[in-house]
Amino acid sequence: MPQQSPAKKAVLNDIAPFTRNEFEARIERTRAEMSRTGLDAIVLTSEANVEYLSGFETTFAWVTPSRPWYFVVPRVGDAIAIIPEIGLTNWQNTSWCDRIETWPSPRPADEGISLLATHLDQISRRHGKVGFEIGPESRIGMPVSDLLRMQKSLGFELVDCTMLMAAVRSIKSASEINRIRHICEIAGKAFAELPSTVRVGDTEKEIYRGFSANLLLNGADKVPYVSIASGQGGYESIIMGPTDRIARKGDVLILDTGSKCGGYFCDYDRNFSFGPPSAEVARVYEALWHATDAGIEAARPGKTAADVFHAQADVLISYGFEVGNVGRFGHGLGKVITEHPSNAPGDETVLLPGMVLTVEPSAMFGGGIMAHEEDIVITEGEAEVLSPRASREIQVIEC
Amino acid sequence: MPQQSPAKKAVLNDIAPFTRNEFEARIERTRAEMSRTGLDAIVLTSEANVEYLSGFETTFAWVTPSRPWYFVVPRVGDAIAIIPEIGLTNWQNTSWCDRIETWPSPRPADEGISLLATHLDQISRRHGKVGFEIGPESRIGMPVSDLLRMQKSLGFELVDCTMLMAAVRSIKSASEINRIRHICEIAGKAFAELPSTVRVGDTEKEIYRGFSANLLLNGADKVPYVSIASGQGGYESIIMGPTDRIARKGDVLILDTGSKCGGYFCDYDRNFSFGPPSAEVARVYEALWHATDAGIEAARPGKTAADVFHAQADVLISYGFEVGNVGRFGHGLGKVITEHPSNAPGDETVLLPGMVLTVEPSAMFGGGIMAHEEDIVITEGEAEVLSPRASREIQVIEC
Repeated sequence: MPQQSPAKKAVLNDIAPFTRNEFEARIERTRAEMSRTGLDAIVLTSEANVEYLSGFETTFAWVTPSRPWYFVVPRVGDAIAIIPEIGLTNWQNTSWCDRIETWPSPRPADEGISLLATHLDQISRRHGKVGFEIGPESRIGMPVSDLLRMQKSLGFELVDCTMLMAAVRSIKSASEINRIRHICEIAGKAFAELPSTVRVGDTEKEIYRGFSANLLLNGADKVPYVSIASGQGGYESIIMGPTDRIARKGDVLILDTGSKCGGYFCDYDRNFSFGPPSAEVARVYEALWHATDAGIEAARPGKTAADVFHAQADVLISYGFEVGNVGRFGHGLGKVITEHPSNAPGDETVLLPGMVLTVEPSAMFGGGIMAHEEDIVITEGEAEVLSPRASREIQVIEC
Repeated sequence: MPQQSPAKKAVLNDIAPFTRNEFEARIERTRAEMSRTGLDAIVLTSEANVEYLSGFETTFAWVTPSRPWYFVVPRVGDAIAIIPEIGLTNWQNTSWCDRIETWPSPRPADEGISLLATHLDQISRRHGKVGFEIGPESRIGMPVSDLLRMQKSLGFELVDCTMLMAAVRSIKSASEINRIRHICEIAGKAFAELPSTVRVGDTEKEIYRGFSANLLLNGADKVPYVSIASGQGGYESIIMGPTDRIARKGDVLILDTGSKCGGYFCDYDRNFSFGPPSAEVARVYEALWHATDAGIEAARPGKTAADVFHAQADVLISYGFEVGNVGRFGHGLGKVITEHPSNAPGDETVLLPGMVLTVEPSAMFGGGIMAHEEDIVITEGEAEVLSPRASREIQVIEC
């Protein structure tokens, strides 16, 4: 089973807090979009959007569905936090926003909803439209029945603000990019230490737990996502959980992690071979390495997310491989592990400096599927690779 | 900073898989409730409910909002999984349900919703009502705009099935209780090892990371929740994240974790004193210990969740303390860290054997707030305490 390296110094302390200016700029850009699209207010309930605009940091709020947390940003006037009483100290200690209303919670018959309605009723109505997180790739952070009841009684038009927030969030500031670079480095250390800590005879579960623990010890705050797969000469899925399967010589192993630090994700994977790889594994690895390179090369301002897909697919096809069944070759990355856009045919989102993307080709081959993944940020010229670039040849675990 | 103990053997392999009978019994109880409340079908989209009825296990599906996962259980006829193509292998390898439809995803314009609509349209309509997770303490796992569009075109009455599922899930089987007992034991080991691995001079962040990693190394699959707080003679919040605060002599430290193994949570905390506690800290700890005991003693079949609250509150009041600002003294526990019911005034849910609850008194005192927490299961007689019961006096970290 995995041998833990000695305790390591956590490094989160190196991250500077976001400035007040940073939050003001975010609010300003959000309000410009609200004006452009005719929204009188947006009501945010999701971890990513509430944190992004308010600065609120919590380990608690998003784990339990018992209590919703509302952050209301009107087009004109002050933003307000409408939160359960238990969260008051937590909010005051972490958010710039000092306009806060609380209710005693849990209170299932009125879980903050009358308080929210009172505030929405006071908002200056020019367009009659209030945005909630109801659009593509959204998960609203409140009971839907509360939303429908309130909409009926207040009589506003319920529109989506997911895409508005996705667009605002898609352009990262230098401080945000620093945080993503930081968590990429943390994961890079855990990946680098892996070959010396696993061995033939370990189960996937043991490797999974050791790797997850090592991400934390290297400085991750949270490890929301680790997938692992292994098999002789290849693996069959890149999203499986760990099984009791025992590693042996000739196995190919993949680990993929979405780890978080300071509220931002990395999302990338690495492949390993127990003993020397077969010629087939070496060839699909080579094709994926070059496809990744082509994706990075294509990811320039003015190109589209679809261009990044096709650049990768062309390389795989030139090698004679079928594209993987994942549905895309990467996606936006930031406060959520998968953000807008998708590197997929038909996604004509134009790339702009400050966008952070994963480049993630996958190929079907005799042994199953194999995937590569790197995290990049779009710049004025060539994209910067935020994850320590994978080795040109598959890493070998000696056995 | 925390010194990691040597690598430990993970123990998940000890957990037996759920039997087919277990899932059949769950489906049967769910259908009985559907008949009683007049639902033609329920459409499940949340991790807890999809896993509970289908057995699907994944590390992937619930981390990213890009793709919804639907599990439809009609009142009559076969259940069906409607899932993104990427998840097919994962579903086939983990769920008993082999009726599966997939769509190529991501496909933002139609993210599985036309496929879902086709199947709902074919369902035998006796009551015209379809249940979705829209009620109290729910978080629906799909975009709300998709739900509203589909409801309009199909013309069914949209009703809640959260409370139905909460009621079904609240009575745990022996196999489920075993899993909760198992994760309670894992957390117990991590808590027991804490005093020998932390010391004066550690930051909260270091303690948090070391403890989180140790939970994984002791056998947890996931550590979705760890909160930590510390302060001289007490702490001010029990839901804060870790800060850069440095531990020193005279501090009181609390760690609380909701860790998961085999799809089930533990949720309990422990308090520690750096050096001998003050008389005040010792006294509030004593009051909380006895309040917890009174809560456990009150948690018997036929009593209500409110009774469990009052039993705890009476002890704290007899000691002269004010009840904490948490809003309740414990809650249901299982596949979600906080489940129905709440141990709170007014929650008249009658306790039944098989219910798993936390008992969680908190008290305000000069030093701030202090909380205790244990996990219990209701039996025919006295409740069984699933978490290794806290020591009668606060644990001292020598310094």
